[in-house]
Amino acid sequence: MNTGLQCLKIGALLTASVTMASAQTGLTPVGFAQVKIDDRFWKPRMDKVSTVTLQACINYTEFKTSRIRNFERAANKNGQHEGIYYDDSDVYKALEAMAYSLRIHPDSAMEKKADEWIDKIARAQLPDGYLDTYFQLRGIDKRWTDMEKHEDYNAGHLIEAGVAYYNSTGKRVLLDVAIRLANHIDSTFRLSGRNWVSGHEEIELALMKLYHLTNNDRYLKLAHWYLEERGHGYGSSPVWHGPKSHEYYQDDRMVRDADKIKGHAVRAMYLYTGTADVAAVTHDPDYLKAMERIWEDVVYRNMYVTGGIGSSGNNEGFTVDYDLPNVDAYCETCASVGMVIWNQRMNLLTGESKYIDVLERTLYNAALDGLSLSGDLFFYGNPLASGGQYGRSEWFGTACCPANIARLVASLGNYIYNQADDGFWVNLFVGSKTEAILGKSKVKIEQQTNYPWDGQVQINISSEKKSKWGLHVRIPGWALGSPVPGDLYRFTNYTGSTIHLQVNGKDVVYQMEKGYAVISREWKNGDKVTLNFPMPVNLLAANPLVKADEGRVALQRGPLIYCVEGSDNQGEAWNMLIPANTNFTSSFQKDLLNGIVSIQADLPVIAAGADSLSVVTRMQKVTAIPYFVWCNRAADPMQVWIPQKIKDIKINY
Amino acid sequence: MNTGLQCLKIGALLTASVTMASAQTGLTPVGFAQVKIDDRFWKPRMDKVSTVTLQACINYTEFKTSRIRNFERAANKNGQHEGIYYDDSDVYKALEAMAYSLRIHPDSAMEKKADEWIDKIARAQLPDGYLDTYFQLRGIDKRWTDMEKHEDYNAGHLIEAGVAYYNSTGKRVLLDVAIRLANHIDSTFRLSGRNWVSGHEEIELALMKLYHLTNNDRYLKLAHWYLEERGHGYGSSPVWHGPKSHEYYQDDRMVRDADKIKGHAVRAMYLYTGTADVAAVTHDPDYLKAMERIWEDVVYRNMYVTGGIGSSGNNEGFTVDYDLPNVDAYCETCASVGMVIWNQRMNLLTGESKYIDVLERTLYNAALDGLSLSGDLFFYGNPLASGGQYGRSEWFGTACCPANIARLVASLGNYIYNQADDGFWVNLFVGSKTEAILGKSKVKIEQQTNYPWDGQVQINISSEKKSKWGLHVRIPGWALGSPVPGDLYRFTNYTGSTIHLQVNGKDVVYQMEKGYAVISREWKNGDKVTLNFPMPVNLLAANPLVKADEGRVALQRGPLIYCVEGSDNQGEAWNMLIPANTNFTSSFQKDLLNGIVSIQADLPVIAAGADSLSVVTRMQKVTAIPYFVWCNRAADPMQVWIPQKIKDIKINY
Repeated sequence: MNTGLQCLKIGALLTASVTMASAQTGLTPVGFAQVKIDDRFWKPRMDKVSTVTLQACINYTEFKTSRIRNFERAANKNGQHEGIYYDDSDVYKALEAMAYSLRIHPDSAMEKKADEWIDKIARAQLPDGYLDTYFQLRGIDKRWTDMEKHEDYNAGHLIEAGVAYYNSTGKRVLLDVAIRLANHIDSTFRLSGRNWVSGHEEIELALMKLYHLTNNDRYLKLAHWYLEERGHGYGSSPVWHGPKSHEYYQDDRMVRDADKIKGHAVRAMYLYTGTADVAAVTHDPDYLKAMERIWEDVVYRNMYVTGGIGSSGNNEGFTVDYDLPNVDAYCETCASVGMVIWNQRMNLLTGESKYIDVLERTLYNAALDGLSLSGDLFFYGNPLASGGQYGRSEWFGTACCPANIARLVASLGNYIYNQADDGFWVNLFVGSKTEAILGKSKVKIEQQTNYPWDGQVQINISSEKKSKWGLHVRIPGWALGSPVPGDLYRFTNYTGSTIHLQVNGKDVVYQMEKGYAVISREWKNGDKVTLNFPMPVNLLAANPLVKADEGRVALQRGPLIYCVEGSDNQGEAWNMLIPANTNFTSSFQKDLLNGIVSIQADLPVIAAGADSLSVVTRMQKVTAIPYFVWCNRAADPMQVWIPQKIKDIKINY
Repeated sequence: MNTGLQCLKIGALLTASVTMASAQTGLTPVGFAQVKIDDRFWKPRMDKVSTVTLQACINYTEFKTSRIRNFERAANKNGQHEGIYYDDSDVYKALEAMAYSLRIHPDSAMEKKADEWIDKIARAQLPDGYLDTYFQLRGIDKRWTDMEKHEDYNAGHLIEAGVAYYNSTGKRVLLDVAIRLANHIDSTFRLSGRNWVSGHEEIELALMKLYHLTNNDRYLKLAHWYLEERGHGYGSSPVWHGPKSHEYYQDDRMVRDADKIKGHAVRAMYLYTGTADVAAVTHDPDYLKAMERIWEDVVYRNMYVTGGIGSSGNNEGFTVDYDLPNVDAYCETCASVGMVIWNQRMNLLTGESKYIDVLERTLYNAALDGLSLSGDLFFYGNPLASGGQYGRSEWFGTACCPANIARLVASLGNYIYNQADDGFWVNLFVGSKTEAILGKSKVKIEQQTNYPWDGQVQINISSEKKSKWGLHVRIPGWALGSPVPGDLYRFTNYTGSTIHLQVNGKDVVYQMEKGYAVISREWKNGDKVTLNFPMPVNLLAANPLVKADEGRVALQRGPLIYCVEGSDNQGEAWNMLIPANTNFTSSFQKDLLNGIVSIQADLPVIAAGADSLSVVTRMQKVTAIPYFVWCNRAADPMQVWIPQKIKDIKINY
């Protein structure tokens, strides 16, 4: 069996370089398997994903729906396919999340369950490598005839799961299944000269993971081929028609010509992540320029203040610049996951911290909002205001979001640190331990912080011998008064701040490079780096072109966007104002929503008089909570953007 | 040429019986060509349709889009089809409207234009009778392969236009084209035993018009065949998938088994109109029962207070019972046209006035709202509340609504009177003259009224000799305290009323039969019948199951639903209350919106204080206007349902 994996030594397992690296910057992310997270904020959430969220995913995937049974039936070549043609992907995404979880929260029962699923998946694969239970059960003669049917989307998630499960456990059954399917696809299309546009991108980034794991450039070539197939009009499907359809799946132009974000948000994010992955290896300047143009178009004109994207439920995607409605915001959880991974790749490709600024914004707000504190309730869309009509769901017919947010949280370790030969990058402030070879020495790095509740960060360095390398600590844009790259949002009350970095208790001079504070020195065992980001309550205003936010402000503290919710404010969230010069205080509430920093202010609040026929204006203590914890008590009224003045009033709407 | 029209004498032209009749009730509508309308309310609107609306339709159909050019290209077998596959229908619908207009507003230039179009249409028809420019220009081999492509929907509108143009002008070129196409369809499907479900119903009702005109029962059989093809799962199209698709085009059950209104509203209305037409001839009790079940489901649980239907833009149709959102109401203008024609057919089938009650409600409110006072701006959807986001459009990509409202208004004469051998029915109160053979005498009937602005109606009877017959005058449900059949809406302030009918100035005793006041007597020349419907301002409440209207009231006066609009109320429409025991006055405002009766009341209004940081409640004179004239000054805030008390308040939303 030619698996393309011959050159891979099991010894390479768990080294970061198997994941990905950028040739331009020399940056490599430190992989999740190398990072031990003991963070006060994240560890309980990751444990919840391991013990609750993934159990919910397993329950729905195997028992409450037929997703696993479809594999059994395909293996037995007997039975009806139940569900939708992309249901296989939910199994793979759950397996990928289980792979990450097994590293952070070993669980022999879960591993047994994963192995059992993998066995069923392997048995369903056809001898020629094809695997897709929908077509195997509904008519194999129809395979690869309709780009919309998600065959390569499913394949991409299989590959990602195979790579993750191998990296996590060293077991290669699923990886081998993935390799056989990747080879089948490569033979069917690229090597046969057959044109094909994937109707839902995903396989490109997955193939790049497979390439980095195996070092077999056939997967790089196939990923690159997938990108280059777009924009020639090869794509079409009976389920789409009308002038917008090619935009919907990003087939209206060649990738290298992209300059405007269009269409389905998750498709776009996965495509551009894959493009950045390919560009990191091929150094194609057209790809890099296209990615930068598209990224600016997203971040400068089409991103919610939460870091969420894709404002319209109609196309699950982008509409026109600055069209960012709040109640009707779509902002799919999966699109937020896509923003996180794409921004990570852009950071690796360029070394610029601005991508991590966006990643952090999306991660802590629009992505994390998708998962309840209980771990078993989900948002598919993440609106920025609610009249009370939105509640979390246990599951969805199209169930992409639950496993997607699960795999993101479980793989948080992938996003904290980068390294190079002579440098170490701290991107996210998460209590954790890792180690790296830096300046030819093995260095242990420990981060201690109470982030995002306060801005104190301590980095402890352990090294058997002294070594010279640069420590690059991201200084978040928000800490310097710039909440986002571009001018889509700005602070209205920023008064300047200075970030003090100390080594062993003494201020050090540092250079700012690409948004990172760089301390280059000879590090010795026991060195301690401390820094502190002040976390005042910042007021944000949107660019005036965002009509939905006109005359309104939002609250940000640290990386977190806040909202007002009915549960804290006598059932109402739409009846208050934030006048200029409002004073805010913030405090940690250990018993509120599993422990959060809330924000308080005395605000003018409009309320019905006793007769319900007149109104009164009173000053009321209003509490704001982090956006990502809203809707954990009830389907409450909620708002992120609060008016500053009364322009008009609506009763009972 | 066998046109199926051999048995039709031109002498039959302009008699009502060529249109349709119900064998059960003996009722025949008096056709538009026999009714001369000189109504103060309607005549200027009909003239506007003739002089402005139809010119806009002609302009867009022939010059600003390629709808006419597509016929030229099809005739020449050369050129590209431009537009969408249902664009031919807009030409036919405009021609149908022109046909009606030519009777009420003779215009030789318009008739010349119509004849010129008809010539192009006739030249485009294939020798075998097929006619559809989309398939003739894009691939004739694909004709009749996709039920969704509207070939028989287009054909239905061609047939309706052919019948109307013949009835109006006596010219039969278009009618002959329609007959050839109808015969082609009959041969291709019914006579060949080939199954087929029309993806957009319309042809059934059109074939019934053709049947009544020609007396050729092949069209009755074909209409009946179309109905009976539904519900067996024959329908499918690549553009639809998922469990709801058969419901979308009413193919989830046989027509005779229908009990729940589902799917696309316009499709449903056209289907059930055609079903009622067939049932009126075949006396199929299952059809009649199904129509009554469906009608009750629409009117009792799924109709807006305006008489509009189809609450969701997602499927342009029905969702679940009592789901009647106001701001997001879809309420397509074409669905209102469909409600008018279906309710007319139900009235003919049963003789019951309740169907005219609904017809009147829809006509004066949800349908008429679709057309601006200027005659050249349109609503596709007709929401019942607006924050200012809705404006009227000059035209639409899918341009079904403009010509549809034009043909409805121009054909108003079809809906005013019914007749039988010994009875005459007044359904709508519209100043007009007509004549009929009643009690074997030729009787002229003249109606004089200022309806809907006041409820005075006078009916003058001229007859060369005395004749005995029954005059049936509809007593609207609203005049008796029952705004709609069923309990979806009720008056909260109805205090009882008595309707006095007088003949020649003296009260007469009358029987109520099927909702009509019946005066049976020997009529003589010069008899005058007068009656008066008091028109107080009524308050309506919705069934508590309609969550969107909870705690709210609407205003109705006569048949008209009112709304408050920003232009009359300092720019606001969402900041007021209607407390219990509010006093209303009404008065005719001759300079307001071309002359309307407006309603006034002193209401508690919430407004911003001078600092814009507090609010005040003040009593303000609020003006309400008929719903159908809203949005004729600006894209204003507007509300139909006004809260009675303050439950909650939203600032700036």
